[in-house]
Parts: sequence; structure tokens; C-alpha cells
Amino acid sequence: MPINRQVVLASRPDGEPVPANFRLQEGEVPEPKDGEMLVRVRAISMEPAIRGWLDDNDKNYFEPLPIGATMMAPAMGQVIKSNLPGYEAGDYIRGLMGWEDYTIANKDTVLLQKLDVAEDMPLTYYVGALGGSGLTAIVGLDVIGRMKAGETVVISAAVGAVGHVAAQYAKHKGCRVVGIVGGEKKAKIALDDIGYDAVVNYKDAANLEEAIKAACPEGVDVYYDNVGGPTLDAMLNNMKTFGRIVCCGMVSSYNCSDNPPPLFNAWQIVARELELKGFLLYSYNEHLPAALETNLEGVRLGWLKVMENKKVGLDKAGELFCELMSGKTIGKSVLEMDLPEAGR
Amino acid sequence: MPINRQVVLASRPDGEPVPANFRLQEGEVPEPKDGEMLVRVRAISMEPAIRGWLDDNDKNYFEPLPIGATMMAPAMGQVIKSNLPGYEAGDYIRGLMGWEDYTIANKDTVLLQKLDVAEDMPLTYYVGALGGSGLTAIVGLDVIGRMKAGETVVISAAVGAVGHVAAQYAKHKGCRVVGIVGGEKKAKIALDDIGYDAVVNYKDAANLEEAIKAACPEGVDVYYDNVGGPTLDAMLNNMKTFGRIVCCGMVSSYNCSDNPPPLFNAWQIVARELELKGFLLYSYNEHLPAALETNLEGVRLGWLKVMENKKVGLDKAGELFCELMSGKTIGKSVLEMDLPEAGR
Repeated sequence: MPINRQVVLASRPDGEPVPANFRLQEGEVPEPKDGEMLVRVRAISMEPAIRGWLDDNDKNYFEPLPIGATMMAPAMGQVIKSNLPGYEAGDYIRGLMGWEDYTIANKDTVLLQKLDVAEDMPLTYYVGALGGSGLTAIVGLDVIGRMKAGETVVISAAVGAVGHVAAQYAKHKGCRVVGIVGGEKKAKIALDDIGYDAVVNYKDAANLEEAIKAACPEGVDVYYDNVGGPTLDAMLNNMKTFGRIVCCGMVSSYNCSDNPPPLFNAWQIVARELELKGFLLYSYNEHLPAALETNLEGVRLGWLKVMENKKVGLDKAGELFCELMSGKTIGKSVLEMDLPEAGR
Repeated sequence: MPINRQVVLASRPDGEPVPANFRLQEGEVPEPKDGEMLVRVRAISMEPAIRGWLDDNDKNYFEPLPIGATMMAPAMGQVIKSNLPGYEAGDYIRGLMGWEDYTIANKDTVLLQKLDVAEDMPLTYYVGALGGSGLTAIVGLDVIGRMKAGETVVISAAVGAVGHVAAQYAKHKGCRVVGIVGGEKKAKIALDDIGYDAVVNYKDAANLEEAIKAACPEGVDVYYDNVGGPTLDAMLNNMKTFGRIVCCGMVSSYNCSDNPPPLFNAWQIVARELELKGFLLYSYNEHLPAALETNLEGVRLGWLKVMENKKVGLDKAGELFCELMSGKTIGKSVLEMDLPEAGR
């Protein structure tokens, strides 16, 4: 009888998570009840938002996970057995799933969606460039940021899961694209591999606001904010009048929700008539099919080079998440599952 | 020959302005050149934004005023002599004018506009409820805040120039309206005279965020922000998902632009998918005629009671501005000019 390995929350992180906050345990493969399906998890998306579920407070957009509970993440998998009308064994689905070999999904599974997996695309892309982070890049720039050709677009976490897709899309649409990164290695990748027009290394900048000004002397039309905190603060003083700030994540706050970094320049929102708009992808379902087509086309035509920080094997899940939250990763952090019987 | 009294900037305020920052001096009445008109100033609008022009930095939406320069403000007056085609002696106009008896206007005068002054309206209303602050209230709620009947609307600086008009309009449109004020006197006026459904006195609240939560247990749809700072911060934790924040002023920052109060809860912009939008009225000219009609009708039908903090006489101008910036005023702070020959 097959075993179901699961990664559970062993303890709440104090600030930055460490691998000891997570524990691998073994259990039985569950039997799907009426209205449920058994899913073999194939690829797990590691996302900064998960950090928020690990604290016990009421300021997140999900309930906090209890200690001992199976970790959750947006993921994709293949249906093994279905008692849910509309789904059959063999179907690929995406949704919020456990960090485990086998998971149960039903009609209420958050973000549940049937996937039409293209033959020429790796499964992991469906939780990355063709999944939440990749579509977030497109919807954020198009729908929230109303980006137009010729504009100056700044992207923070510039080589991250969202950032590297956003940058290539903005370039493809004729914008000047400036990235904000932490570290020389990321700066080089941003310029050489992703194609940014200019890069600001915040770890290297004596004055971040001035460094951004030097890179964007005419000001910024669209700022795609993945980090919040001091970077957002410096950007507020660099926006053009009527600039739009796409608030997609504030990773600088996820590790310290009781003591988030302050913003001092909020009054520029008035002085420069800025628009800041927070968004979570699942509120924009009507825009997802077009965004998926955009990125599929981008991969096939070559203007979108997908970058993955991939580990293989469920025992690497905690480590991979901690690596993501340390801020050192390039591209999309994704866990490919290691079931022995895996195949397509 | 008539004398032109002028109020000039005597020194830059250090924090909150004091009357000694301003000086009354006398000069000659200027002669309008070709393309100019001589205007007798009739009513001067005192506004927090003026505070920003008094500091010598580059973060304002106007150039700083030099020491010794005539103070400026949005104002209204009557044309005495016109060498500008389209304007005649007797016309009423509004625009950015000097704090002086006689001022020169031309086609480039900021916010220049001919006024159709109604017989039944006091001239001072045209720089208040029927001018910038009053129209800002309407455009802010309708165009920026997209306020709908039945929603919960919170207004800070609730008894101020914008706030008291916004509150009455929101009530008139069928919203539940909650005010944030500083002080018992203002709280009483907000409830008894303006008609707020509930009021939070931030000076009295041990925990502002909790006090707002108690007044708005279901959360807030639209927050009309006139103050920024800690009030905005507390509101970020009280907004409903998809809430809209109309960023109309951040008066808490005007007295201390080098050391503005920090915001700690910006990541709620993402978590709650909020929209913050700064706006300055002159970017929304196409909406002004309808907003003016709304407020004229409001005054005539009685749903809009205009509140003025009025002083008469140019020698009171500095004092009135300092009073406004001290945060103690109720309603619109307006200076009615005291020319001996004044009349309609």
C-alpha cells in the first residue's frame, strides 16, 4: 500500500523561516469521499505569501495554519481517482494543495482549475510562468498598471518569479524596463539574461532614491512593486505625476508582520496624484485566459525565457521555501515531486 | 491714488507656522499690461497645501515661494480693468492670486476661471463649498472613491473644509458616514450639526484602530483621507477587501515635510486589494460643472449646510492661516477682504 509523505508545520518561524520549522512525516493515502478526488501532486509553487499563513495573527488573507497541519501551497497535480463530477482520472488540475504526495481536492478547493497541459511545456511551468506568478506579471502590468509602449517601468524583486516574467513582457511591449535587485549576481543576471535596460542594486546604493533617479531621470510611469518597504518608499519620490504602482507583494513585511518597515513618503501619493492598487490574481479570473496565451506564445516565440529555481523531492520542500524567503533565489522557486512511478 | 496692501512671506516656518512668518506691507496698485487684467481680490481660500510652498525643498507640487514674495492662495475677485480678451471689468474670476488688495491675472494664471456668481450665494462660498474644497469633496467621493449608496464611508478631518461637505454629500447619497476628528468640540459638531452617523475622536482613543473598528464593525468601503499619517495607518487595517482610499491631503505631513509620520500597514494594500489614489482637483476639470451644480442644489435644498471659519480683513490673513494649520478650525477657513469700497 502506497505511503503518503507530508510536510507539516513543526513550529512557527520567528522572523525568517528555517528548515526546522517544517517536518516530513508519513501517513496513509486518503480515500476520496463523495464529491472529492484523489490527486497526485506533481509540482508545488513556493510563494512568499505562504509566509503570512505561518504567523498566528488576523492580518493575513488566509487563516493561519495550525501547528502540525500539512503545509499548503498553490500546486498542480494529476487526478488519480475522482468522485467529483466533471473531473476524471488523468486530468491535470491546479489549486491550493498540501505539501504531500497525494492530496484531496473538491469543488471548494481554493483556486481549483482544470489545466490544459501543452505537450511542449514542462509541468512545473504551470505553477510558474504559466501559473500564478507568470499570470500575475501580465495582469499586473496590463490591467492594474495600464502599461503603454514607451513608458518607463520599474520592477522590484527584478529576477524573482514575477519580476523576470514582468520584465520580459514589458520589454516585448516596447517599454524601458529598470530592475531593482539585491546583489551583484542578480544585477548581472538581470542585465545579461533577462534583458533589463538598467538595474539598481539596492545593496550597493548609498542612497536608493538617488540611484533610482539616476536610472530613471525622467521619472517612472509604472512601478511593479513586489517588495514594499524602503524600496516602495524610494519609488514614491521617483514616480511621474499620475504614475501607477502595482502592489503585488510586500515581501519585506512577510518576515516581520509585527514590525513591518515604515513608509515615510506616502504624501507623494497626493502630490504626484499616484494610484496604488493592491491585487491578488484570483480576483481577476476573467483576464487569465488571455494572460496564459500571452505567456505560452512568449515561451514558444522566445521572447519569454522562463527561469526556475527548481528542487526535486518532497524532502527538499522546507529547504526550498526557506531559500525563497532568504531572498537569494533567481526565477520561480518550484518543487518537482519525486514519486517513483512519476511519468506523464 | 489707492494703496495695495500685500502679505509677504517674512520667514520660513519651522514646523507649524506662526503669524510672524508673514508681514503686511504696502505698495502701489499695479497697472495691467497687454494681456493682463487688474483684479480686486474679494475672498481668499486658506488651504493646507499652501504650507508646502513655504519650505525650500523640491517635494511639493509648486515651486517654493521666495522670502519676501507675496503669499499666494486660490482666491476669487472682480476684474477692475482688463487687457485680456474674453474678460471685462465687472467679471468675477477665480484663480491663484496674491494675498493682496489688487492682483494681476493673465491667461496663464493657475486655475483661472470665470465665475458665474449666483445672486443668492455669498462670494466666499466660491472659494469654499462652491470652490476647490467643496468640489474636491464631490469629485473625490464620486470619481475617485466610486461611492455607492449603502456603503460605509469614513472621512478624516471630518469637520474641515472638505470633510463637512463630503459628509453631507455621502449622507445625501445614502451612505453610512463616520467621521474622524480631534477633540470633543469637533465630535459634537460632527454629530449634531453635520449629521455624521458616528464619530471617532482620535485624541480620546487609546487605540485608534480599535476605535474605528468599533464604529465600523463591518469594515469600510471608502475612506476619504484628508490627513495621512497614523490615521491612514489605522484605516488600512479597517478597510474592506477592494476598499478605496481617496488621498486628498496629508495635512499631518505638511508641518514636517522633512520628517513625515511613517505608515506601517502598507502591506494591507495587497492583502485587502485596496486602491489608494491621490488627486488634485485641477486634474479633473471635466467633472467640475456637475460637482458645482450638486453643491448649489445642496445649499438651496438644504441638505448641504456650509460651515465657514471666516475672518474679515487682509491684516488677519497670516493669523487665519496659522489657525487653519493648528488644526483647530471648523469648516472652511476663508478671508473676506475689507476694501472700504467693497460692495457687490
